[in-house]
Amino acid sequence: MAEVRITGVRVVDLRFPTSRESIGSDAVNKDPDYSAAYCILTTDSAFEGHGLTFTLGRGTELCVLALEYLAQYCTGRLLSSITKDFCAFSRLLTDDTQFRWMGPEKGVIHMAAGAMINAVWDLYAKVEGKPLWRLLAEMPAEQILAAVDFRYIDDAITRDEALAILTASSDGYDARLRQLEAEGYLAYTTSAGWFGFSDEKIRRLCREGIADGWTHFKLKVGGTAEDDLRRGLIVREEIGAENKLMVDANQKWGVLEAIERTRALLPLNPWWMEEPTNPDDILGHARIRREVAPTRIATGEHCHNRVMFKQLMQAGAIDVCQIDSCRVAGVNENLAILLLAAKFGIPVCPHAGGVGLCEYVQHLSMFDFLRVSGTMENRVIEFVDHLHEHFLDPVVIRRGRYIVPQMPGYSIEIKAESLAEFQFPDGAAWA
Amino acid sequence: MAEVRITGVRVVDLRFPTSRESIGSDAVNKDPDYSAAYCILTTDSAFEGHGLTFTLGRGTELCVLALEYLAQYCTGRLLSSITKDFCAFSRLLTDDTQFRWMGPEKGVIHMAAGAMINAVWDLYAKVEGKPLWRLLAEMPAEQILAAVDFRYIDDAITRDEALAILTASSDGYDARLRQLEAEGYLAYTTSAGWFGFSDEKIRRLCREGIADGWTHFKLKVGGTAEDDLRRGLIVREEIGAENKLMVDANQKWGVLEAIERTRALLPLNPWWMEEPTNPDDILGHARIRREVAPTRIATGEHCHNRVMFKQLMQAGAIDVCQIDSCRVAGVNENLAILLLAAKFGIPVCPHAGGVGLCEYVQHLSMFDFLRVSGTMENRVIEFVDHLHEHFLDPVVIRRGRYIVPQMPGYSIEIKAESLAEFQFPDGAAWA
Repeated sequence: MAEVRITGVRVVDLRFPTSRESIGSDAVNKDPDYSAAYCILTTDSAFEGHGLTFTLGRGTELCVLALEYLAQYCTGRLLSSITKDFCAFSRLLTDDTQFRWMGPEKGVIHMAAGAMINAVWDLYAKVEGKPLWRLLAEMPAEQILAAVDFRYIDDAITRDEALAILTASSDGYDARLRQLEAEGYLAYTTSAGWFGFSDEKIRRLCREGIADGWTHFKLKVGGTAEDDLRRGLIVREEIGAENKLMVDANQKWGVLEAIERTRALLPLNPWWMEEPTNPDDILGHARIRREVAPTRIATGEHCHNRVMFKQLMQAGAIDVCQIDSCRVAGVNENLAILLLAAKFGIPVCPHAGGVGLCEYVQHLSMFDFLRVSGTMENRVIEFVDHLHEHFLDPVVIRRGRYIVPQMPGYSIEIKAESLAEFQFPDGAAWA
Repeated sequence: MAEVRITGVRVVDLRFPTSRESIGSDAVNKDPDYSAAYCILTTDSAFEGHGLTFTLGRGTELCVLALEYLAQYCTGRLLSSITKDFCAFSRLLTDDTQFRWMGPEKGVIHMAAGAMINAVWDLYAKVEGKPLWRLLAEMPAEQILAAVDFRYIDDAITRDEALAILTASSDGYDARLRQLEAEGYLAYTTSAGWFGFSDEKIRRLCREGIADGWTHFKLKVGGTAEDDLRRGLIVREEIGAENKLMVDANQKWGVLEAIERTRALLPLNPWWMEEPTNPDDILGHARIRREVAPTRIATGEHCHNRVMFKQLMQAGAIDVCQIDSCRVAGVNENLAILLLAAKFGIPVCPHAGGVGLCEYVQHLSMFDFLRVSGTMENRVIEFVDHLHEHFLDPVVIRRGRYIVPQMPGYSIEIKAESLAEFQFPDGAAWA
């Protein structure tokens, strides 16, 4: 690898006024302005590393300020000095002796760490001339493990167990790679079922979705019981029994209410119930799961670190692990979570949408298929069709599947003109 | 109550350069500069409401920025419009539809909510002319419950169960009040056992502590096994078998290591082992507790909300509940946690120290004694002898006990000259 030195970090408060059209509305997040604290690592070469953490508008300035603080841990460093001991770099960000008090490893400061770590991976992949999924997939197991922080999870997965998982993946690797490049990775659509959409709009979007080749549809629930069921039956009617319908309550309910409301949706035959209650409630999810079986339980987009994911798995709380590319500390922590999920035999179906999440997570699922779980069975990546036009290397969806990205990097770089237009509060979009 | 309108919020980034003397050092927090995001609610009367959230220096600016954002939810409001439906006010701060994405209810934004909610309680108590503990203790049960958010905890404690706890407390109330005013509340000292102190200093401070009437001593551990044991034996030798020694690892270990290291400290006969592992690891704490019995397990200072405290109790993970006055959303959320602890029969021993934590938590423990748990058995409040000179109404300790505060308010108001001197980065202390 060419020696590249990181010379500076530019941070942008980027906000898209999506709330003007009720895009992304759900039972809890009623008016999101899809936004990001966005950072650019400048270097002494032609390469830049880009990374972002996804936010909903107000408060993005907090993640921006956190990124400006964390910039000191990148600036001036050789890229290779980071990548050769990537776990140590991650700990620099998460273990700052004063800053960590506001976590540790959660919320604003952890999301900022995620943006920065992802930017380093973007830079690394660009310098190596590979899309991130391929960079990871072609890495020796030992190098992958050197990026993983086993602290606080080694009671659930040891380094040796993780090594065994990665080593076993060489069996059938070539066939999986051919399959992935030929077929892509199955996606599901959330675009038909936002909370703010009318019955007619849902029906029309389901029909269009079926025509476009979609097989998995998600509906936002958490309204009245009658509304939820009626809307769900419309989706089921339109997509038929052979396709999948998932429902998502976005944390709306307490544990007991979640049990009652999930049971009431059984006539929809949901493929999963997502975020039935508070994201911190591991034992609550476990109880809900026991009491609503056979309905499967999914969560993760608000799960703030690997210690929480570990417990969701240990407690038997989830059937589906929904990793998020931004909320945890970037690629490194997601490697830990993918390995935990493989150990526990839980399928990973990433959270996406927002801005940049689809671009990010496709790489993680493809790597998971090639090197960790080794399967795409019961696995789908969320897709929402917003804001992709702002990316240099946007996701490509064909007949309900993610097509494998080929451009070097982590696909997260936003066009310079979009950065200028949507910069908050000075961009033209906010004038 | 006189009608008082909140006219504005002033936020101060306040930092004390305590790291210059290794004060507050432990195995993880090696160089804290005890700090606070501090807010002042100005009103159309002579009263002001003061509140702070405790931080360790760098990053305080994030909580300051969050407080400046949350100020909109106070400004212009009648105090009575907040206090008559205090839970609704708390939800305004925690449920902001865009801001909550960076939580929910955790980290920077939740700590800021805590400072603001505490400031409202300070104002409320001043207007009522009572110290906070008395304001709460004299409140009708229904009014106390109107401040509690039962969302996400009603699977563990119902409103009716909480009402029964508060109602039962009328039995013996007068006797408890007399006892409290006569005896104060038992404290323990952390000042003798900081991580950075030499053996000689620990020995000297223990002797001084015994001479001053202290009966409970805490030692920071998490160094080498030999160092921890040697230092612990020094404390035990100095304080004797009849006094209590607690050990505190400040999250240093993984679960398996914590089990091994806690067992190794059994010769010290520790009264509790505090923060043996990651604060998010509910199941980890439960496993440690099972495997190190009879050593008792304590945690809570990094427990970020009532949903996590609920699970620590449901999982049988803790013997001692260490509430923090700042990390959760202020008095309201601590009311929920006190009620949960009473339901589960777990003693509350607050985390204190830092700046202002002792001033705050004495009120919560005294209220707990008078109206919730009804007992001081096996309960102690942490005490650290730093920075009290900056407060208008500092804690008073006599022979190892907190003396009941009498000045109206939440005892958290810092002298104007201290605010000026330690304001970061412009105060004289930082010049």
